[in-house]
Order: sequence, then C-alpha cells, then structure tokens
Amino acid sequence: MAEDIETKVVKAKKASIELSSVSEEVKNRALEAMAESLDRERKAILEANSKDLEYASELKKVGKLTQALVDRLKVTDSKIDGMIAGIMDVIKLKDPVGETLSTLELDNDLILYQISCPIGLIGVIFESRPDVVPQVMSLCLKSGNATIFKGGSEARESNRTIFEILVKAIESTEGMPKGAFQLMETREEIMSLLSLDAYVDLLIPRGSNEFVKFIQDNTKIPVLGHTSGICHIYVDEFADPDTAWKVCFDAKVQYPAVCNAIETLLVNRKIAEAFLPKMAEMYIKAGVELRCDKDSYILLAEKGLSPLSKATEEDWSLEYNDLILSIKLVDTIKEAIAHINTFGSHHTDGIITENASRRKEFIGLVDSSSVMVNASTRFADGYRYGKGAEVGISTNKIHSRGPVGMEGLLIYKYILMGKGQVVADYAGENAKPYTHRKLDLKFADVN
Amino acid sequence: MAEDIETKVVKAKKASIELSSVSEEVKNRALEAMAESLDRERKAILEANSKDLEYASELKKVGKLTQALVDRLKVTDSKIDGMIAGIMDVIKLKDPVGETLSTLELDNDLILYQISCPIGLIGVIFESRPDVVPQVMSLCLKSGNATIFKGGSEARESNRTIFEILVKAIESTEGMPKGAFQLMETREEIMSLLSLDAYVDLLIPRGSNEFVKFIQDNTKIPVLGHTSGICHIYVDEFADPDTAWKVCFDAKVQYPAVCNAIETLLVNRKIAEAFLPKMAEMYIKAGVELRCDKDSYILLAEKGLSPLSKATEEDWSLEYNDLILSIKLVDTIKEAIAHINTFGSHHTDGIITENASRRKEFIGLVDSSSVMVNASTRFADGYRYGKGAEVGISTNKIHSRGPVGMEGLLIYKYILMGKGQVVADYAGENAKPYTHRKLDLKFADVN
Repeated sequence: MAEDIETKVVKAKKASIELSSVSEEVKNRALEAMAESLDRERKAILEANSKDLEYASELKKVGKLTQALVDRLKVTDSKIDGMIAGIMDVIKLKDPVGETLSTLELDNDLILYQISCPIGLIGVIFESRPDVVPQVMSLCLKSGNATIFKGGSEARESNRTIFEILVKAIESTEGMPKGAFQLMETREEIMSLLSLDAYVDLLIPRGSNEFVKFIQDNTKIPVLGHTSGICHIYVDEFADPDTAWKVCFDAKVQYPAVCNAIETLLVNRKIAEAFLPKMAEMYIKAGVELRCDKDSYILLAEKGLSPLSKATEEDWSLEYNDLILSIKLVDTIKEAIAHINTFGSHHTDGIITENASRRKEFIGLVDSSSVMVNASTRFADGYRYGKGAEVGISTNKIHSRGPVGMEGLLIYKYILMGKGQVVADYAGENAKPYTHRKLDLKFADVN
Repeated sequence: MAEDIETKVVKAKKASIELSSVSEEVKNRALEAMAESLDRERKAILEANSKDLEYASELKKVGKLTQALVDRLKVTDSKIDGMIAGIMDVIKLKDPVGETLSTLELDNDLILYQISCPIGLIGVIFESRPDVVPQVMSLCLKSGNATIFKGGSEARESNRTIFEILVKAIESTEGMPKGAFQLMETREEIMSLLSLDAYVDLLIPRGSNEFVKFIQDNTKIPVLGHTSGICHIYVDEFADPDTAWKVCFDAKVQYPAVCNAIETLLVNRKIAEAFLPKMAEMYIKAGVELRCDKDSYILLAEKGLSPLSKATEEDWSLEYNDLILSIKLVDTIKEAIAHINTFGSHHTDGIITENASRRKEFIGLVDSSSVMVNASTRFADGYRYGKGAEVGISTNKIHSRGPVGMEGLLIYKYILMGKGQVVADYAGENAKPYTHRKLDLKFADVN
C-alpha cells in the first residue's frame, strides 16, 4: 500500500513541474471545464452523496456522528451551485504566477528578477465537507500547484465522485499535465503521506483542533493551519460604550462556533461599572454563560445579574466554541496585553478605545495575526478580507499568517539574466563594483 | 540545566514583544553602541580569541581540527574592523518593521492594513565563526527579533566575550528591552532549544550539511537553511562557446568549496564536439578532476585529454565542494531539466544559450531558487543579490527561498480599523456588501 501512495505522490510531484508553467489561458479553460462538468454531473454527485448520507445516518443512530456533521456532509443542488460559483470566482482572479516581485541591476546587462511561482506539491487533508475539493482544487490549479487530497471517510463516495469529475475535466483540457491531482482515501495513506517530506512541500489540514494538532505532530512537512482560536476583546477605559456593547456582542454571539469568535472579555476596571452590567445583560439574554473572575463576579452579582458562573484559571486557556464567555477585569492596558499574549492563540484580538495612544500600544504589542480596533473579531476571514477565496487561517509565524488566500500557495524564484558575467571579475584586487540599482522592469515585458 | 534554558528562552520571548515595537531611532542608537563597544574592547576580544586558538591548535595536533577551521576561528584586528563595518551597514538599511504592505477598504471607515512585523524569537546555531554573532545580532535587532545564539564550542571564549560586549551595549541604550539576546554554550542546551517550539519561531542553522540536517531532523521549529548545494550548468546547443567557457570555468574554479559552485556540467550533444574539449582542457589545467559519463569520456579521450575519470550513478548526487566536476552529455534540454530536477538540490542552476525559447523553457521548468542565464552560479548570494547582509541561503519552498536577507526575518500582521462595525450587519438577508477597494494609504500616515 505504502508504495502505491509514493507512486501517486511522485507522479503528482513530476506533474507539478509542468503545471508550474502552464499559461493563464489554459488554466482558465481547465477551470471552465471543471465548472461545466460539475453542472452536467449533478445527478452522479447527488447519488454518491446519498450513499454517504445513508451511512452517516447509521452512524448518527449509534451516536458516532452529530447532526451538525451530517448537515455539513449533505450536498444539495444549491451547494453544487455554490461550488460552481466558487470556481467561476477563481477564473476571475489574476494569475498569480510569473509576477515580477523585484528587479535589481547587479551590473550592466546583469539583471536579477524575483518572480512569483507555485510552491509545488500541496497536501490538503480535510474532514467531511465535499465542497472543499472543488474549492481547493481550483485555487491550487490557478496558482499552478499540484495537490494530493484526503477527505473524511464519511464523505468518501461524494469526494471520490466529485474528484473524478473534476480531474477528468482538467486532464481533457489541452495543455494540462496529467497526474497533478491525486486522491487518497484511507487513514494509512495519510500516515504515509506525512512521511513523504521529500516530495510534499506544504500540508494544509482543515478540521478540528485535535485533527490539525495531530498532523502537525506527525510530519516534518511544513503545515499551514491553526489549532485554536482563543480570541479576546479588551474594553479600554477610553472606549465608547455603544461601540463596545455592539462589537463585543457580535464577536461572541453572531456565530460562536468559529475560531474568530471571542472566548474572553477583558475590561478595564475604570470603565467596568459603566460598561459591564449592560453588556452582561445583553449576553445573558442571548443565552451566553458568563464565567467571571472574582471582581467582575462581585460587580455583576451586586447589580442583581444572573446566572453567573465563576471562572477558574483554566478558563483563560479554553476555546469554548459555544455561547460561553469568560470575563476578567484588568487594571491597565499592559495587563490586558500580557493576558492576551500569554493565554491567546495569536489569532485575532481586539481593542475598543477612542484613545490614539492606547490603540497604538495595543496594535504594537499584541502578537496576533489580526488586531481589530473598534471592530468585531469575526471580520477575520479570507472572504471578508477580500481574498476571493480562503485557503485557510494560519497561526504560523512564517510564510503566511492570518486568513490566507491564494498568495499562501506561492513562493518565488530568482532569475539572473547575464551576458557571460563571472564572479572572478567582481572579486579580488581589481574587483568590479556592483551597481545594485533598482529597476522598474517586468520580467515578462523584456524576456 | 534544561530549566535554565527554558528560563532564558521565556525571557527572550517576553522581550521580543517589547523589541517588536522599538523605534528605528532607538534601534540605530543601539547598533551604534554595539559598533563603538567592539572598537573599544578589541583587546578583550583578541585575548579571548587567543584562548580559543590555543585550544584549537591542541586539537589540530591530534587531528581533530583542520587548518581551515583554525583559520575561520581566528579573530584579527581587520576582522573586528569587518564586524564594525557590517554593523554600520545595517544602520544604513531601512527599518523593515511597520511597513504597509497592503491597504484594503472593506467598507466605509473599515480599513484593513497589512503591516510588516518581526517574526518574534529566532534561534541561530552556528559552527565556529565568531563574526557570526555581531552580524546576526545586528540584523535581528534592526528587524526587531529577539535571538538565542549558540556558537561552536571551539569558539566559546571569543563568542562569549563578543556576545557580552554587544549585549551590554544594547541594554545600556535607553529604550531597549533587556533579555532579548541570549547565549547558549553547550550541546545539551541546543537539544533543549530544539524542543522549545512553543517559544522559538524560527531556527537558522549555519554550518556543514550534516549539521543543518541534524537540526532539521530534530525539531518541530521551522528551519531556514540548506543542506546541500548540488548546482548544475547546462550548455545548450545554442550556447555562445566563449560565454560557456568563461561562465562554466568560473562556476567551478573561482571558489569550489561553496554551495553555489557547480558539481555537474550537462552538455547538449550537438555542441559537445565544439565546446567540451577546450572546456576540459581549461579545467584540467586548473587542477579539476573530471568525472565523465561514457560518451563524454569517449569524446575527450579521443581528443587525447587526460587525466579523465569515469562517473558512476552516485556522482550525480554528490556535492564535491572541491576541484571535482562530473560531466554528462544530454540529447535534449528536457533531459537536462529532468536531470537537474531529479539530482539537484533546488539551489542554483544555470543555462548557457542564445536562444530565447530555450531560455524560457529552462527558467519555467527548473525548480530551483536561483536560475542563471549566461551568468555564473557563483552570483547566488545575499551580498551579490544586494541584500546588504545575508541571513542564510534557504532551499525551503515556503517563506524565504534562495539567498535570504533581513526580509526573511519578517512577517506581517493585519490591523482592522473600524468604527464599531459588526459582522451581523454584513450577513443574512439584508447584508451590507463589502467594498473591497484597494487604497494607497500608509498605516503610519493615518494612525
């Protein structure tokens, strides 16, 4: 079995080289063929999906699958419309390959170009969500990256059918290499994939925190992902209370199950009396369980608010993903920042303040990929950030951080165009100097 | 012991937050203080170094150290001048922190800025070269990154003295945090450092291939480095022979001990007769051992050239780092590209050709961080690429590739500046649309 996977991976790696220099026109034709095929093959997709749903409902009966997971698994005609619309959006995105990032003259007729190019071979591992396949495949194709997919076993029939439809569309497009997209179906195959760091350049796991953590802990391949979203809002003493009420409510209540919802509210003591009771009332009305530190508990209990729970030290490190919120009073903005940097997951954190120097301090010192000023943390995602499509959210500190669009699938190469220059002439006693002059030349315009 | 290291690392991580928002002016004052202190403390440095040299010459006597390593270890007044000049160069570099990389209006008064920022805490592990400390420390300081250093044990006295002089200079500069730069001295400390992926954001190992490989194999922290430099030049049938002779000679002979020198010469059969005999003669005169594939051996032997060796399959994967070169004839440019992508290390590879479509094919399909056209592979380094200073050379496919300057020590954060906007207003039935309009605003100009 392990050999089979290596064969697939080697094939995809080889095809990745060809794919990296396919023209935008050909790539867009392949994308159009993908969209058309999905539209034409709706029946096959829905049939395959009904098999998965049948099996899933069995699993649900014995308590092995939740209704939420069954819902995510279900493909409908309108979900297929969404897949097609997603592919059409990717066609509209500018080809990101071959862009000139910088041009430097090293000497006369010795010009160094830095050009964007695909990373190479990406592994995408996701839990049961059949719509991931067309979404990721279209982004990888447009950015010139070969891709290995592994979906959740609950969606096996749907994933396989969608995958085969799409690959057939791609490979029958003239000018597209064969073998660039491969599907894996078993857990054993994942384990083998994780060991193939000689071929796979980047892994993108999408799923639960435990799932992403498992991938990170079991491979030497770079992983783009995030294991948790412990997000905060700090309500500064110079906050406008109306803004604070509105934003803090949205950040917890609008959709609590996602990584960019807040888990902890930090409130400056100087504004606690004026801000917190009404805030707590709004939360309680919306069904939010409030876990308060000692002083916020006393303050809210005195105002007759209930129910209230008491927060423990453990709460500061919890991602509830639910209508639960921990609350802490702080003496200073520094205390808030220290709390965020210590207990947060460097994902998305916000401040509510009208004071410019407080704002500046918070932005400068909070070590998170997104910092929100007087706006909800829920804005932190690829679509809202205008990326067209989201590859994932990364809490890495290198390569890509925060919501990652197609740019996260790109790297660059340097091209040095010379006329026979040798280093010997630029070294030693009569060394020629380098000019190191920035030029405004685009590689594609002159080569 | 392990706890001590964790204490140092936690201290540096904490200081990294403060360091990330120190102003350019303060950072430049710290750099000036570093340069002045090195100049003032020459005696202490030379004394410490003489202790290392004494020990090294003992090691050399028993064959545990080569003369080349002893030479690299030796600090002289002119080497101290070089360290000082290096720091002064870094002062001249523009502060890379806080640069606005993109600005996007999401809606009225809801502006998303992408701002460059330091990565955080870097671990730099190097073999015996005391001049690495000031070079890397100045780059990390200017880019706002805290740093843990570990030098080779042969240079322990020199490294410690230089490190202490520099840290004293930094920490006595007003506005600089304390603890951002830490030194480790033992192998046990490295092993502990490698396990501290919760704190250390990036490792930069500098040294032999085995050393870098060891680091990569024993940590989950991202590693910026390269393990080998198996570089090629392909001499195309449309090559200008004069250019080919000159460039291929330089790429092997000018300095064979480095990663960007070539190890294999690939020659199109159609030009072999016209190009290769004279090339071989030049190499043999310069003392290069030629390891030829069957056909190039026959060709060169027929011309009476000697000495010649025969290449084995193994030779295509060897980094000689010496005056040895393997030679292979190829039928087509495709065969050359396939050879390079299979046996090369994706470092630096070149083509000699006057033909535009050959050039284009080679640039598009060779998967290397630097591709040279009619220029020596030896140009691939940070100084020649105008980076001011080189952090390292990376054969990674993510984050930074090829010669890496200060830009490799940076990442970004997103700052969303709002006026109380919430996601609820942009979702559901009466959802407000996003404007997603690119703006030309710099964050620092408006905030």
